[in-house]
Amino acid sequence: MTKWVYRFGNGGAEGRTDMKNLLGGKGANLAEMAGIDLPVPPGFTITTEVCTHYYDNDRAYPSDLQEQVDASMANMEEILGKKFGDVNDPLLVSVRSGARASMPGMMDTVLNLGLNDETVQGLIAKSGDKRFSYDSYRRFITMYSNVVLGLDHHNFEDILEARKEEKGYRLDTEMTAEDWLDMVQAYKARVDNLLGKPFPLDPREQLWGAIGAVFGSWMNQRAITYRKLHRIPVAWGTAVNVQSMVFGNMGKDCATGVCFSRNPSTGDNHFYGEYLVNAQGEDVVAGIRTPQCLTNFEKETQGSTLPSMEEIMPGAYKELADIRGKLEAHYSDMQDMEFTIEKNRLWMLQTRTGKRTAGAALKIAVDMCNEGLIGKKEAVRRVDPAQLDQLLHPRLDPKAEKTVMGKGLPASPGAASGRAVFSAGEAEDWTHRGEKVILVRVETSPEDIGGMHVAQGILTTRGGMTSHAAVVARGMGTPCVAGAGDLKVDCSAKTLRAGNTVINGGDVITINGSTGEVMVGKVATIQPELTGDFGILMEWVDEIRTMKVRTNAETPADAQIARDFGAEGIGLCRTEHMFFDPNRIIHMREMILAKNEEGRRKALDKLLPYQRQDFFDLFKIMDGLPVTVRLLDPPLHEFIPHSEAEMKEVADAAGTDVQTIKQLADALHEFNPMLGHRGCRLGVTYPEIYEMQARAIIEAAIDVAAEGINVLPEIMIPLVSIKDELDRMADVVNRTAKEVMEQKGKTVGYMVGTMIELPRAALRAGEIAETAQFFSFGTNDLTQTTYGLSRDDAGAFLMKYQEMGVIEVDPFVSLDQDGVGELIKIAAERGRSARAGIKLGICGEHGGDPASVHFCNDIGLDYVSCSPFRVPIARLAAAQAALGVEGETNA
Amino acid sequence: MTKWVYRFGNGGAEGRTDMKNLLGGKGANLAEMAGIDLPVPPGFTITTEVCTHYYDNDRAYPSDLQEQVDASMANMEEILGKKFGDVNDPLLVSVRSGARASMPGMMDTVLNLGLNDETVQGLIAKSGDKRFSYDSYRRFITMYSNVVLGLDHHNFEDILEARKEEKGYRLDTEMTAEDWLDMVQAYKARVDNLLGKPFPLDPREQLWGAIGAVFGSWMNQRAITYRKLHRIPVAWGTAVNVQSMVFGNMGKDCATGVCFSRNPSTGDNHFYGEYLVNAQGEDVVAGIRTPQCLTNFEKETQGSTLPSMEEIMPGAYKELADIRGKLEAHYSDMQDMEFTIEKNRLWMLQTRTGKRTAGAALKIAVDMCNEGLIGKKEAVRRVDPAQLDQLLHPRLDPKAEKTVMGKGLPASPGAASGRAVFSAGEAEDWTHRGEKVILVRVETSPEDIGGMHVAQGILTTRGGMTSHAAVVARGMGTPCVAGAGDLKVDCSAKTLRAGNTVINGGDVITINGSTGEVMVGKVATIQPELTGDFGILMEWVDEIRTMKVRTNAETPADAQIARDFGAEGIGLCRTEHMFFDPNRIIHMREMILAKNEEGRRKALDKLLPYQRQDFFDLFKIMDGLPVTVRLLDPPLHEFIPHSEAEMKEVADAAGTDVQTIKQLADALHEFNPMLGHRGCRLGVTYPEIYEMQARAIIEAAIDVAAEGINVLPEIMIPLVSIKDELDRMADVVNRTAKEVMEQKGKTVGYMVGTMIELPRAALRAGEIAETAQFFSFGTNDLTQTTYGLSRDDAGAFLMKYQEMGVIEVDPFVSLDQDGVGELIKIAAERGRSARAGIKLGICGEHGGDPASVHFCNDIGLDYVSCSPFRVPIARLAAAQAALGVEGETNA
Repeated sequence: MTKWVYRFGNGGAEGRTDMKNLLGGKGANLAEMAGIDLPVPPGFTITTEVCTHYYDNDRAYPSDLQEQVDASMANMEEILGKKFGDVNDPLLVSVRSGARASMPGMMDTVLNLGLNDETVQGLIAKSGDKRFSYDSYRRFITMYSNVVLGLDHHNFEDILEARKEEKGYRLDTEMTAEDWLDMVQAYKARVDNLLGKPFPLDPREQLWGAIGAVFGSWMNQRAITYRKLHRIPVAWGTAVNVQSMVFGNMGKDCATGVCFSRNPSTGDNHFYGEYLVNAQGEDVVAGIRTPQCLTNFEKETQGSTLPSMEEIMPGAYKELADIRGKLEAHYSDMQDMEFTIEKNRLWMLQTRTGKRTAGAALKIAVDMCNEGLIGKKEAVRRVDPAQLDQLLHPRLDPKAEKTVMGKGLPASPGAASGRAVFSAGEAEDWTHRGEKVILVRVETSPEDIGGMHVAQGILTTRGGMTSHAAVVARGMGTPCVAGAGDLKVDCSAKTLRAGNTVINGGDVITINGSTGEVMVGKVATIQPELTGDFGILMEWVDEIRTMKVRTNAETPADAQIARDFGAEGIGLCRTEHMFFDPNRIIHMREMILAKNEEGRRKALDKLLPYQRQDFFDLFKIMDGLPVTVRLLDPPLHEFIPHSEAEMKEVADAAGTDVQTIKQLADALHEFNPMLGHRGCRLGVTYPEIYEMQARAIIEAAIDVAAEGINVLPEIMIPLVSIKDELDRMADVVNRTAKEVMEQKGKTVGYMVGTMIELPRAALRAGEIAETAQFFSFGTNDLTQTTYGLSRDDAGAFLMKYQEMGVIEVDPFVSLDQDGVGELIKIAAERGRSARAGIKLGICGEHGGDPASVHFCNDIGLDYVSCSPFRVPIARLAAAQAALGVEGETNA
Repeated sequence: MTKWVYRFGNGGAEGRTDMKNLLGGKGANLAEMAGIDLPVPPGFTITTEVCTHYYDNDRAYPSDLQEQVDASMANMEEILGKKFGDVNDPLLVSVRSGARASMPGMMDTVLNLGLNDETVQGLIAKSGDKRFSYDSYRRFITMYSNVVLGLDHHNFEDILEARKEEKGYRLDTEMTAEDWLDMVQAYKARVDNLLGKPFPLDPREQLWGAIGAVFGSWMNQRAITYRKLHRIPVAWGTAVNVQSMVFGNMGKDCATGVCFSRNPSTGDNHFYGEYLVNAQGEDVVAGIRTPQCLTNFEKETQGSTLPSMEEIMPGAYKELADIRGKLEAHYSDMQDMEFTIEKNRLWMLQTRTGKRTAGAALKIAVDMCNEGLIGKKEAVRRVDPAQLDQLLHPRLDPKAEKTVMGKGLPASPGAASGRAVFSAGEAEDWTHRGEKVILVRVETSPEDIGGMHVAQGILTTRGGMTSHAAVVARGMGTPCVAGAGDLKVDCSAKTLRAGNTVINGGDVITINGSTGEVMVGKVATIQPELTGDFGILMEWVDEIRTMKVRTNAETPADAQIARDFGAEGIGLCRTEHMFFDPNRIIHMREMILAKNEEGRRKALDKLLPYQRQDFFDLFKIMDGLPVTVRLLDPPLHEFIPHSEAEMKEVADAAGTDVQTIKQLADALHEFNPMLGHRGCRLGVTYPEIYEMQARAIIEAAIDVAAEGINVLPEIMIPLVSIKDELDRMADVVNRTAKEVMEQKGKTVGYMVGTMIELPRAALRAGEIAETAQFFSFGTNDLTQTTYGLSRDDAGAFLMKYQEMGVIEVDPFVSLDQDGVGELIKIAAERGRSARAGIKLGICGEHGGDPASVHFCNDIGLDYVSCSPFRVPIARLAAAQAALGVEGETNA
């Protein structure tokens, strides 16, 4: 005979916490608490296997289910000395769903089940409180009608509002026992009227109705959509928990509350919680009454004048404090608990692992390890890498008032305030005058780099999570809100509009890059504190992980931040970012305007000293660590000015006319620049560019080595799709390096490798590895080409795709392991076959995404590289991956 | 002992024609001719293995080579009764290279080797001609100095020019024997002067010098580049042919000539050739004297007054005519032969398979099969599918004079003349006035479709072989020259410039889409004649091939042409092309402008009848054959007008203002439209569009079936990268189809499938095939995304890539089998595993490329689909693939 029902209560239980698959999360934890002899109201759990049977058999229950439920009800009656449906002392129960994972969209709760016109009299008799009893009854009718009978709340609220108006009441608390009794009658009549049949008064009918509603809700549309989105198999099913009711609202000797075994905000090892006397759980949540502090310590800390539970219910408090200790020790983690006190008797209604802030997670993990509750590995497992991001940027003071005018994508975390400026030039001008600015643009382009660098924050109204603005901002650790489509920017009028709100150039705004909010005026922020716990945990992390973490950086400032954050080298130095400085771009443009190789070489000669200095500085900061330098990547038209005034300036400097500049811009225009004349295609057609860059790298390496610095340059050729492209560019680099070393009479080690960022490169990785000494997977471009999806254009419909459930997560945020991931695996495998031990890493935005870091670790990459501010996240994710913490696939 | 040297001549040979790998092409054919007892001047071939040995051993010959060469020289001396270096009757030889494949860049020929100051006296004695002898000597010095000693011709031409000036001569023929003797002395002095050592006079030193030069040239830069471009392995090596000299320039009883066993232009079975009396081979080629007709028939045909060889050398002619018959029968193919007559004696110097025009190839193949020389399969093998293209379009009259003003890419074959017009609107206006026009644009866009349809030809100055203009033009069979970058178009001024040549709007120009030439004025053209031979060969082709050939077509006219050309259905009907008609685009724009689904549905309802009629017409023409309809693919901004005037028109029609249209255009603007909001992404976000199209297809299918037509619609969802996209769109189609069938009370069969045109779709083909009933590989987009290369932008640098040898062939012209091909193989395999027998085809431009057709056949696709005008090419290529004719990879 299959066991369909598991009992708990009265100091024992048939289930355990590790039976979540069978009993659901809630049922398993109730059983566990009962099993360790905590005071849990007795009850039972109908297993998830019943749910599966129900759907496998055209919504029929197992034939022996009823018998087992009846027996379990009888067992509850025996424990409590009450009877279900008894008119003198009725057993009342709650019915709740409980799947393996928390599932919004499922039927939640029916309380007070078992009440009817007769049993309510028993409740009155036992509680001695008529008003409480009728109120409980009408709450039951509302809840049951809603979740079991499918009638919306408003059907009943109408009636209640009418009564309150009639009586001149403002609050529900003014309702008398008679009022509630009238409501009970009116509610029942409404049900009859709406459904054409009376509200079920038979407690057993109520019970099976509620059980059926839980199982039925497993297949409602919201649940189906949620499961699809979160890849929860339909076969898991849900359990049903039937538990005897206890009441925190039966008088002054009753209470209800929620508590945490440690402070979930700070992580401090203080018992923390809130409670209300004479209240039900929903009253705590609803916020009508102000909850009181559980402990004296908390009361003092908060300066509260309301009595603590420790003061007024010392017995129950002591019992609860003991349970706190027992449960935390039992689960070895911070617990989030619900309790009710009925006539001075404590009952535990729930325990689960408590949610906590990033700071608290860090502190609790380190503290618990120091306390000997858990080991270092477990401590490392306990901190969510994605959450860590909160700690690494300034954030809004949660207490500050704010006027939100619009919302975009949380593109680069952190909060910032400043004067709104509408061009990169303005940003630089205002900054030079000592003002803090937020750069507001429809979208940004590489020309805006100067302005982006000086801005406190960046706001765009177009583009997605990996638009230019977002990528650059994350790289710089600058807060950014991208694609705020509801806001209208007029850069010529210098206005930002949201409905009737108008921000003019120079007005102060605040953006929150962690939430996407845009606010009027200045909102106070809190600076990040990398406390001692952070450093301690990161030490443990580094002991555990095997995969290296590098950073994407090209400025000394970024490189230094990254090194401070623990980066083990530079995985991607984008040299083009070095050309937008006003002193340099003029030579870049001179090169583009040149009619022949000789002219280009002349201009490049002027860029050489700048490039050499760039690399010198980076090599110095990264002493002893590898630095991967990607040679010029973007199409040349990115360096051509677009405004008439700038064109004039360039024309004058180049001794030509605006017309010529325009013609050049036209000639360089591309329909799909992402797929155009860029990357090594530039190097193949203009090898002198890569030659200059190779020279700058090798000269800088020799110079810096002369100062005793250990320099490890890795020269990377971008956008290779054909082996011959790499062969030619490697030739240029090697020839130049040889020449430089001969000229300087010194040698220096270096490597030549390539980005794998096009599907063809991944497929041809075997032959490419004959030349390439390393591969760096450029997962941004690889995602774009594998999906045929431009990250600059996809923002709008990708968001719709996520809403509709076509995709779970933006593939530019978390690596698409099925598609892009397969190409990476193919390339890694073929690369290794051709060149044993070839160095492999990734340098796309995904390098800072925990799920992607897991994937990289699992396929054995040597390193990931990410924005400086994500380095600690990647280190933690790498450690967890090494521990085999299951990487949540794309979530 | 390895045999390094193979002798031939005197009625026998040690080699054969099937020993090309060992003896090279020339050596093998000389041996073959000698072996069947044809008069070949005796000689020997040093094998390609010597070349390999030479490079494997640091440029040293096998130790026993000299001995074998000496013995073979002695054998020649014995046959001819002459001695090498004999001052009385010297044996003179030619030395030539000869690899397996013809290899430009290799050392070609040294003639008259063995001459020196003494042996020249023997030549004078034997020939009785001093002038001839000294002339031969000085030619030898020039040739040998050039190819063996590395001295350029101009070193000697200076001296000759100075002498002619001094003597007042205009032509070389005015030079006397004494003049040539002086030249010999002066040339030798110049060599001594330049090299610091004398010209080698020892014949044996000359011989080994020439042999060494042949082997050395195998590794010169030009040869290396050529091999790389044509994937010729370096290990093949070259052979060296040493052959006794015969002279066609020793008097009136001497001659030299070139002949073909059939007419290479027409394919007629007439002996065809040219000759010159008292001349050397190079004189025939140089064109200083007019060559004479070989036969009386040809003389009469051409109306020549010069005597034929048949007339004046009847004995030698008869012998040659006999050899013609023998060689053609021997090789079973049309032969291209070289001969020399020395003192009335005929010598054969070369035979090889003759090159021929497409028409000749067709005629010769059919004739030879009818003559019983070859079978049907061999006849099918004999015609080059790519060459067939020449026959399917009007072409320039080769006799017409032409003034070429510039050159672009041969984007769509055929020639056309017409008045230059600079906008699609003008093209339509002029055409309505009865003029023929050539549409001249910087590039074309879908808006230009109307003008492109009416134009005789299309000329663009930007874009590559698969730019919009090129693809559409090939699809319509309209000649097109694309990417003519040297020409400057000014569409507002309506001028086309090339240097000082200016074409104004209305001036007549001619374009040759087969060569890329652009010409001033009208040049006469010849219409294609699909002669009986074409039809006969195509019958044989269809008996042999197993893979189907469909066409890409959306207009009834194109569909009819394709069916006439043998298409077995439509593989790609691009529905968006149906929306550019002025009656329709207004509704399309109305839909785009609509604020909500209701508005879009209203506009779509207006488009429905047009769409239904489109499909009705296509289904009718394709009675009994499948028609694959691709639902809307391009991004919506392609339908938005760009000029102010058109925006005004649309605004007025839509009851809105130009500002709104501009804002819409801005909102729809994409940085990389190729990777943007298009294909099924439109269908997912606006399902009502696909719903309308599905309705139009199913309604049309039911209507046309009612007329007794056998209709097989295949509905294709484009740009799928995620299975869920296809699932949703298949739902829309199936739901709509069910609805229509219920409404009409009739059923009709149809399939739903998808394009595989993104790398991710190829990789996820297994799960996609769970829903898709067929795959059609969209190799254009798949190539773009696999390479990360926009076909609209890549023209310029892809051409440079080809010139440099980075790629052999434009991957948009011939499928990249290594990269894109692997994705296709992966998808085919995974698709078949998930759905046995899933229908597979390709519908990119590659469907009409013979090498790509081979690939598709080899991996077992069910069909290829191509432009109507390429259908016969694809049929032939498919037949050859079925015969296992080795597909020349990407060539």
